[in-house]
Amino acid sequence: MLYSELIQSIHPLDRSLEKEARYKIDRKTKPIGSLGLLEELAVQFSLVQNTLKPAISGKALFVFAGDHGVTAEGVSAYPAEVTPQMVLNFLRGGAAINVFCRQDGIDLTVADIGVNYDFENIPGLIHKKVRKGTRNFLREDALQKEEAIASLEAGAATLMESFKQKPFSVCGLGEMGIGNTASASAIISAATGLTAGETTGHGTGLDEAGLKKKVEIINSALAARKAISSDGLDILTKLGGLEIGAIAGAVLAAASIKVPVILDGLISTAGGLIAYLIKPEVKDYLIAGHRSVEIGQKAALEKMGLRPLLDLGLRLGEGTGAALSMRFADSACRMICEMASFDEAGVSENN
Amino acid sequence: MLYSELIQSIHPLDRSLEKEARYKIDRKTKPIGSLGLLEELAVQFSLVQNTLKPAISGKALFVFAGDHGVTAEGVSAYPAEVTPQMVLNFLRGGAAINVFCRQDGIDLTVADIGVNYDFENIPGLIHKKVRKGTRNFLREDALQKEEAIASLEAGAATLMESFKQKPFSVCGLGEMGIGNTASASAIISAATGLTAGETTGHGTGLDEAGLKKKVEIINSALAARKAISSDGLDILTKLGGLEIGAIAGAVLAAASIKVPVILDGLISTAGGLIAYLIKPEVKDYLIAGHRSVEIGQKAALEKMGLRPLLDLGLRLGEGTGAALSMRFADSACRMICEMASFDEAGVSENN
Repeated sequence: MLYSELIQSIHPLDRSLEKEARYKIDRKTKPIGSLGLLEELAVQFSLVQNTLKPAISGKALFVFAGDHGVTAEGVSAYPAEVTPQMVLNFLRGGAAINVFCRQDGIDLTVADIGVNYDFENIPGLIHKKVRKGTRNFLREDALQKEEAIASLEAGAATLMESFKQKPFSVCGLGEMGIGNTASASAIISAATGLTAGETTGHGTGLDEAGLKKKVEIINSALAARKAISSDGLDILTKLGGLEIGAIAGAVLAAASIKVPVILDGLISTAGGLIAYLIKPEVKDYLIAGHRSVEIGQKAALEKMGLRPLLDLGLRLGEGTGAALSMRFADSACRMICEMASFDEAGVSENN
Repeated sequence: MLYSELIQSIHPLDRSLEKEARYKIDRKTKPIGSLGLLEELAVQFSLVQNTLKPAISGKALFVFAGDHGVTAEGVSAYPAEVTPQMVLNFLRGGAAINVFCRQDGIDLTVADIGVNYDFENIPGLIHKKVRKGTRNFLREDALQKEEAIASLEAGAATLMESFKQKPFSVCGLGEMGIGNTASASAIISAATGLTAGETTGHGTGLDEAGLKKKVEIINSALAARKAISSDGLDILTKLGGLEIGAIAGAVLAAASIKVPVILDGLISTAGGLIAYLIKPEVKDYLIAGHRSVEIGQKAALEKMGLRPLLDLGLRLGEGTGAALSMRFADSACRMICEMASFDEAGVSENN
């Protein structure tokens, strides 16, 4: 689907069942509001599925991979060759995201959007390469506008093709790309007006000197690139990256088919923020999976008004926080379907 | 098992495998420390099971029920009759805790430790009633010392009998008892020296006037009862309650058989705190399931040095936060067993 058509196909959630859904939840045998975020999830899935008996019948997680030209500046603790190595690790089932997807019966799709490596006939890998990594955003725009759009379309197509093969009720979005915390922090700074110092963390394990240098590079890049804070496509074009664009595209695609989509940590949330700036209506379909250790993620979540489900001290990415929180969508649906009401259980109500 | 024998049977965790367990986790294909609390759980289960390949082979959740004399002062939004009504709801499978236990294959045990109601031949209910509710701790000691010990032994026996019937690798502890947030807040204030204003919340739904009154009652009771801050048994005796004593006893029992035990919200954590004051070594076996909305829980967790896994805005009790977080024990064990190392995956390490 073309980018322009995709944007047109997203509509705000029909809220006509909301009052009934909240009433049904409030009649359950528990103090009103006492199941916190699970109650909000139950309302969201009721509206999305247009029923007071929502159910989870399939779960999917997408990992988008891409490289970053800015790694030439030394912004990561790991060498860039780790991106393709980890893609192969995903395909062999040895990474953390594989473990957590297996545990919960989540179908995992791994797509190459912009890895700087030629994968040859690798079973299971979805080939959607737009180009071999972004340009170095400290020196020039990370992408051309057409490439940014192509990354959005690649992410959307990956999700849609998977959905057609095997539909799902909820999905999560993760990533792999050495250097992409720098891109994500830059995106979040560009969108919120915060300085790099307020959005940048240690990534995969920079020391204090490394963090200081990373902050300086991002601040310089922000000044040089001058991205328009309200323009998601402009921010994506100037600051990258390809896998972040794919995440944004997958968010747009999920919203267009009314499937709630769980964001992961810093990078995934930066992708969600790009989609939100492009089409604010996606918010109705977004779920924040977890609170990352990376400080920039908090700013992005606040910009979108999202509150994360988990706070496990994670900072791995790959979609791990999205995978680990996905089952709460199921918990919420089971709650609204299976719990007894005060009347059914013969339980007295509050004074 | 007698209380005195139970205390003697608890030993600190053997930490001889810790270095090896941490090394194994650090060699996995992820940045060091990036799986946060899951890494700590993986170490804890490795040590408890004395293996670098820990596994979860059974999950149990215990709900202890009891009534509270202090409800006569109007400290709850719900009438006391709700305690037995909810016990019946648990046994019929209609409560939130039933839904979440079913979702995750957790065996649920419901025990009457001190409900002010005669249950007649109710299939599935474990009868361990010590007395029909506590005394009103504003006017007199909630329990006699022998009753407090009996509640500890009742909780321990419930857990041990269940374990003998069907062993489990991890368990969670919940409760039902109208008025028990008042008892729990009083316990936490007594143990930490904080005022009732710093440990008391809205419970099941008090308004501001109701909260103010509840705080005044607890402050008055704390001044009148003069519990010894370092003496868990004294605090339990003076401030109750029976189901909280059972939770403390179950913690002691779980520690004695080296099974990690997940605390739930305010009341369950107060029970954990009683056990911790009685025998600090239980800390090695404790896990904080979630961050409750009730403020007193935070103080109790800090006193024990525990950090909660979930932050879902829950304030329901019943063990719901423990049940919803139990699967992360499994995630952690799978992580240390199933993830590939850098060497196995051929992934480059950090610079």
